[in-house]
Amino acid sequence: MPGRAKAASSTERVYADLKRIITAELRPGDRLPTTRSLVTRYQVSPITVQHALTRLTQEGLVFTRPGHGAFVAERRARPASVDHGWQAVVLGPSPPVLDEFHDLFAPPRPGVVPLGSGYLDMEAQPFGALASAMARAARRPGAWDRVPTEGIEALRVWFARQLGDASAEDILIVPGGQAALSTIFRSLAAPGAPVLVESPAHLGTLAALRALGLRAVPVPTDADGVRPDLLEAAFKASGARVFACQPTYANPTGATLPADRRAAVLEVAQRVGAFIVEDDAARDLAIEGTAPPPLAAADEGHVVYVRSLTKPAASGLRVAAVRARGPASVRLRTEAVVGDLFVAGPMQETALELVSSPAWARHLKALRSVLRARRDAAVQAVRDHLPQVRLDVIPKGGFVLWLRLPEGVDEVAFARACMERSVQVNPGRAWFPAEAERGFFRLSYAAASADAIRVGIARMGEALRAPTPGTAPSRSPRAERTSRARR
Amino acid sequence: MPGRAKAASSTERVYADLKRIITAELRPGDRLPTTRSLVTRYQVSPITVQHALTRLTQEGLVFTRPGHGAFVAERRARPASVDHGWQAVVLGPSPPVLDEFHDLFAPPRPGVVPLGSGYLDMEAQPFGALASAMARAARRPGAWDRVPTEGIEALRVWFARQLGDASAEDILIVPGGQAALSTIFRSLAAPGAPVLVESPAHLGTLAALRALGLRAVPVPTDADGVRPDLLEAAFKASGARVFACQPTYANPTGATLPADRRAAVLEVAQRVGAFIVEDDAARDLAIEGTAPPPLAAADEGHVVYVRSLTKPAASGLRVAAVRARGPASVRLRTEAVVGDLFVAGPMQETALELVSSPAWARHLKALRSVLRARRDAAVQAVRDHLPQVRLDVIPKGGFVLWLRLPEGVDEVAFARACMERSVQVNPGRAWFPAEAERGFFRLSYAAASADAIRVGIARMGEALRAPTPGTAPSRSPRAERTSRARR
Repeated sequence: MPGRAKAASSTERVYADLKRIITAELRPGDRLPTTRSLVTRYQVSPITVQHALTRLTQEGLVFTRPGHGAFVAERRARPASVDHGWQAVVLGPSPPVLDEFHDLFAPPRPGVVPLGSGYLDMEAQPFGALASAMARAARRPGAWDRVPTEGIEALRVWFARQLGDASAEDILIVPGGQAALSTIFRSLAAPGAPVLVESPAHLGTLAALRALGLRAVPVPTDADGVRPDLLEAAFKASGARVFACQPTYANPTGATLPADRRAAVLEVAQRVGAFIVEDDAARDLAIEGTAPPPLAAADEGHVVYVRSLTKPAASGLRVAAVRARGPASVRLRTEAVVGDLFVAGPMQETALELVSSPAWARHLKALRSVLRARRDAAVQAVRDHLPQVRLDVIPKGGFVLWLRLPEGVDEVAFARACMERSVQVNPGRAWFPAEAERGFFRLSYAAASADAIRVGIARMGEALRAPTPGTAPSRSPRAERTSRARR
Repeated sequence: MPGRAKAASSTERVYADLKRIITAELRPGDRLPTTRSLVTRYQVSPITVQHALTRLTQEGLVFTRPGHGAFVAERRARPASVDHGWQAVVLGPSPPVLDEFHDLFAPPRPGVVPLGSGYLDMEAQPFGALASAMARAARRPGAWDRVPTEGIEALRVWFARQLGDASAEDILIVPGGQAALSTIFRSLAAPGAPVLVESPAHLGTLAALRALGLRAVPVPTDADGVRPDLLEAAFKASGARVFACQPTYANPTGATLPADRRAAVLEVAQRVGAFIVEDDAARDLAIEGTAPPPLAAADEGHVVYVRSLTKPAASGLRVAAVRARGPASVRLRTEAVVGDLFVAGPMQETALELVSSPAWARHLKALRSVLRARRDAAVQAVRDHLPQVRLDVIPKGGFVLWLRLPEGVDEVAFARACMERSVQVNPGRAWFPAEAERGFFRLSYAAASADAIRVGIARMGEALRAPTPGTAPSRSPRAERTSRARR
């Protein structure tokens, strides 16, 4: 105990002196002395220094950059509050925003089982291969010079080859799938125009449409994806000339459009004279067999195709390709130049190094095993712990399960009850373009290990069995009203 | 001669065999055997192999990637022509486009003195420092994981420090200045709204406004930049609530707003309740003294500030910061998330490594000497070879001269006459937001050595003296009509 008291007072002493230095001598962004030199200066152990730094970090006085040391943080004290009321007058009504989409970008909370993630966890990302690819790219100084606005040729050729005999001329490199979708919708549809989407649809698509002032019009799906007969009816009823979809391992449903429906969807687009925006984000996330050929492979200009490296590689590798043909391709390029949608040359070179290295095939193979193990763990755990929950599609690729709670259970209350047990899942309503069907939730196995998935789903079973306001068994007329009010 | 004939026939033989292999055995994107192995296979010299490859490259069958070898190019033959007429119906009228802006992105033509460039040439860019910075960033695998949507903290702190005591909380990292401007205008002004700009204005600003369907309203400038009295009048007359400007080393005029005008501009914005979009792209390109403090440093929420690393570093380093306060800042972040305006973590780390390394200060110092030498060469050569041309502002930073031809000389015809002498300059009319004042042209010393600048301007002198349709001395009534028709 004397030992611990001494340590505590050493920590206190180091903490107090560092705090004085930070406020009196240093400026935000300055680097603190190294741990080693603080050990020497204060004659204390590295652990004591670390405790002092942790305390300063918790107080917001210091931030650390791994491998770089500790730095003086921004002073939080702001000048006397400023009136920004005039801005509200100038800005006018705020644009429609899809909060759930923005929430997806929040970093996972520590200690929570992340079953709501849209990105692979660090274990599943090929960091070694990425680091080598970047190091190789760094050795090519030419990469920093001006690159063609449509992207470097070799990378465009690579993306074109992925589409069979497509021409690299039709490929445009852009910084990520979401940038691609925003630019495509901006190019193909005037503000206020209707755009058909699957129901439920990819959340990023819905967010982009909403932000652009476009009207998302739902087309029903079943376990095999969009229904081509209803697609044609929706084109006719809405006057839309654009249909956005994910035919392969759709997010959130996990459905994959079979060959006959693919042909039928293309036929409909040709018959009505419409664009299909094919978001092929999950192609590299196959778990069983290989992904079917994209719609774009069999198309002559109706399909605007998006392929991204972000999902299979790393959230930091924001490199995607758009393939369009005809006037649409020209319009896309114009939008891309004005919006500065270039990918820095060195990032393109890094992406090219990555996908052309043998490590890429190895990574995709390893990723397939990881995702299969996680999917199987998730499906089995759902059967074991959530037997009342319906799962129509066991996805052949991707990383999401789309589940339906028993009749009468509110999905928002359920997600909240899960979070109380430190498990994050997404209530499904945000994924619906129009009136949401009730009771759906999305479970992602992208960012949790098979073991964590089992633990998480077991806790979800507890949440479902527990008498919370959201579960049917305990539902009183009053709780029903509350729940309705929340809609 | 027999030797040369033999070499020619060896080249022919290698060429023919490689062509056969490329068409019969390889696919686009496949790598050709190395020069060394071709030398062995065909028993010829490396030069012969190179000649054969050059011919295949010229024919479009092969492309090379320095350091990687030669690859089979895309087949140019396209399937029987496809009718994309239906697309025109769906796409409707094309959005307004500023061709001159798109032209700026075309790579410089070989053999032409590039006095129209918007970027530094390779000699003036810190490639060594960039390569080391990227290599250091590559060693940090954490960089590939998810980064905060607003950017990594240390880089935001760096940008905030550049603004004095600004808070890193107000900083948003975006991929380049043009992306910043597009996002800002989209956030601050509804489609169709008027936006005030300097006249003449930055071309990227005009292009962004046009593409977004915003109306650019001119505010006159003189040799000291925008005139605050007319700015207030323009706000009142147009109803605009946004003014976009470059107060420091403006492009194209080279003007720098003096301290009293800076205060007056801020006062006007406060009085009318308006935003100032301050594009500080050229801050790091000071030639004489230091750049005056930005408007944003003395502001409490009226200035939305843009600072980019692209101009002083490399066109491939697309990293910029936006600083906004109040509700405008929230709206900007929303736009940035939906448009996927993230900068990949490794690029942010690279930028941070670059600006925090001692090499950055050395580069800026070297850049200052280079730009001073080039500016002085350009100004002297204009005096020597273009004495009839007016130059009101000798810029204290940046890389453009804004010049006016003698009365009656058409600037487009003049630029064409220069190009006939292999010198590229920009006729000035595209830089005017409304009716263009005639006779202006823009001369950039960003991408040509002092010697090349002297040669180029001497040739411009010849172009001006030569009896071309665009020059006054030889102007016939007929030529005048032609010139008018071209307006």
